[in-house]
Amino acid sequence: MARLVLKFGGTSVANMDRIRNVAQHVRREVEAGHEVAVVVSAMSGKTNELVAWCKDASILYDMKEYDAVVASGELVTAGLLAIALQNIGIPARSWQGWQLPVTTDDAHGSARILGIDGSKLIEGFEKRKEVAVMAGFQGIHPESGRVTTLGRGGSDTSAVALAAAIKADRCDIYTDVDGVYTTDPRIVKQARRMDRVAFEEMLEMASLGAKVLQVRSVELAMVHKVKTFVRSSFDDPADPKPGTLICDEEDIVEQQVVTGIAYSKDEAQITLRRVADKPGVAAAIFVPLADANINVDMIIQVVSDDAKTTDLTFTVPAAEYERAKAILEAAKAEIGYGDLHGATDVVKVSAIGIGMRSHAGVAARAFKALAEKGVNIRAITTSEIKFSVLIDAEYTELAVRTLHTLYGLDKT
Amino acid sequence: MARLVLKFGGTSVANMDRIRNVAQHVRREVEAGHEVAVVVSAMSGKTNELVAWCKDASILYDMKEYDAVVASGELVTAGLLAIALQNIGIPARSWQGWQLPVTTDDAHGSARILGIDGSKLIEGFEKRKEVAVMAGFQGIHPESGRVTTLGRGGSDTSAVALAAAIKADRCDIYTDVDGVYTTDPRIVKQARRMDRVAFEEMLEMASLGAKVLQVRSVELAMVHKVKTFVRSSFDDPADPKPGTLICDEEDIVEQQVVTGIAYSKDEAQITLRRVADKPGVAAAIFVPLADANINVDMIIQVVSDDAKTTDLTFTVPAAEYERAKAILEAAKAEIGYGDLHGATDVVKVSAIGIGMRSHAGVAARAFKALAEKGVNIRAITTSEIKFSVLIDAEYTELAVRTLHTLYGLDKT
Repeated sequence: MARLVLKFGGTSVANMDRIRNVAQHVRREVEAGHEVAVVVSAMSGKTNELVAWCKDASILYDMKEYDAVVASGELVTAGLLAIALQNIGIPARSWQGWQLPVTTDDAHGSARILGIDGSKLIEGFEKRKEVAVMAGFQGIHPESGRVTTLGRGGSDTSAVALAAAIKADRCDIYTDVDGVYTTDPRIVKQARRMDRVAFEEMLEMASLGAKVLQVRSVELAMVHKVKTFVRSSFDDPADPKPGTLICDEEDIVEQQVVTGIAYSKDEAQITLRRVADKPGVAAAIFVPLADANINVDMIIQVVSDDAKTTDLTFTVPAAEYERAKAILEAAKAEIGYGDLHGATDVVKVSAIGIGMRSHAGVAARAFKALAEKGVNIRAITTSEIKFSVLIDAEYTELAVRTLHTLYGLDKT
Repeated sequence: MARLVLKFGGTSVANMDRIRNVAQHVRREVEAGHEVAVVVSAMSGKTNELVAWCKDASILYDMKEYDAVVASGELVTAGLLAIALQNIGIPARSWQGWQLPVTTDDAHGSARILGIDGSKLIEGFEKRKEVAVMAGFQGIHPESGRVTTLGRGGSDTSAVALAAAIKADRCDIYTDVDGVYTTDPRIVKQARRMDRVAFEEMLEMASLGAKVLQVRSVELAMVHKVKTFVRSSFDDPADPKPGTLICDEEDIVEQQVVTGIAYSKDEAQITLRRVADKPGVAAAIFVPLADANINVDMIIQVVSDDAKTTDLTFTVPAAEYERAKAILEAAKAEIGYGDLHGATDVVKVSAIGIGMRSHAGVAARAFKALAEKGVNIRAITTSEIKFSVLIDAEYTELAVRTLHTLYGLDKT
């Protein structure tokens, strides 16, 4: 007997037929003798509808009320799945975030889980052989007693945090794909599903644009060593495929240098030309952006032709581009720069692999291969286990395919 | 300054435009210097959608999970109204049933309110000049900690119970009609809106088919002497009409003998012919029906031609007709009756008025008037302040109009 957490996303619970299918997945695990806790998202589209109403009610909507509204979608699916399970003879009950409770900080709209009290849920396993169905994406701030949400994709984090709290043997993230791929299969037909991927690699992939898991859920899984599978809810419940295991790197026997290629279209580039090369100038630029909660990613500094000033290029999320430009233009005199150039038709393509640690020249090979295809690189950043290049958006597919082939990831 | 509870039903919060209109009604009362608590229903149609999903999940759906699912609709409107109020500069926050808490018994699906702790809400009035927006229709069972709902129309009851708990000066039930009418204006063009109606009369009207208020909300208003208005949310928020006040009979100056005519199509008639006239036979008939939660209303017993048996006629809710027939047919030998006749194309028409107490022959005039119009009366019941006749459904409009005119209720 094992203790499992199964998580089903919005497309997996999109309507009653899909919810009945989820019940069959749960049944299989129950009949195998396991204790099962399920975490569910809202029906696909429901959260967007609720968010749109909040925005319609006020452009400056109160995040506390936003959370009270949008957290309701998961309550519906949790109750419906509990009914569907009972209907096939499996004892089940739903748990709302505040009922366990799932405690979070008070960062409404993107709260962080502080703890999950799994005791009532474990009592249900032990005394009533009961499947627990927890509403994902939400919690409660213990001081204010108000409902909080974890941000988009937060149900992944709910599931991993619950798995850590109840010391589950496994956390299965059911989604609409059958695992984690070496890159987006819609772009590269030769993309391969990986059997295993290391936590660190998955974390980079999620951060760099792979949408299969929320970044924070991977962080949590890594910290708490939660054995996490990504698998498909569209498999036959009687004969499912194993999916991709996210695990410690020691558990991966054949380590490759590069394991995946990710890309993110959610990028905008800003270049400040002829920035005065004096102490404190970086602070003058980046502190106001940080104060406005704008996340700056790639930063490249190049000495200008005149050698007395520098050119500074960096990226911000595309959604924050206009706001970032306005802040920098307002601070032009204070910062002291010549002019500001921006571009939104850019894409960040990244290669990720723990093997890079022990292999030199991995990125250099990419620069050469991209140059040969005529892809101009606007910016580069590297870290221990990944490198990223910023390129013109129109070269996205070409660049992804080139790197996928270069590092031997194509399906044979 | 007064303390008010305003309640808005599903059609009044059907979409964001309607919710913004509700905010204007609230604004008017806030600007008049009042402390305001608002109780909201789910957007019209939403509760039906949620109920349909529960039924789709299982015909034998768990009422505890049903409550967890259907209570979510009010959370959405409570949050959205709070945002809409903030958007026009009025401090506001939403309250979910469990947050105050609103405690109820554990009769899931039709729970009764045990108490409402209004202290946090009053603190909001006093410390933050804050409008409280409470999700109607729901509460929490204190022992199990599970969400409960009060049954259809339960938000009326939430509002009156809240008004009693916080000792509100007034409870305004905003709906899609502008008050309580002497009868259904769709049937009788001469129907008049009443300025005032006594609690006891309103209770009978609600019980006898007038759909303007939930019966239990009127009971609560009567017991706790809550001054309750029924009024229209479709009025111009800047210049609303007063609606109908439900109040003590002493507060009604010109008391009429009959104040309203109600009708209910939700009736079915069952007649058992030649029932053995022996002790215990009534119990043999009605106990099994009561055990099956079937509510028996009008009961008439007539001695048969042979004087050794009786004919027994009674009504049950139309929705329970088939079930009641099956129970009685199964118990035929035990009860001992000749045959069973039933009819579902029947209607109960009632006249209500506190003045009946002190006027003899009120009902007799009705029997005569209906006979003159050729309306056959199948059954009659009377109580201190109302009488009802069961007639063929096709005579509904004729009978209602006849009684409305007979008792001088037509608009002049």
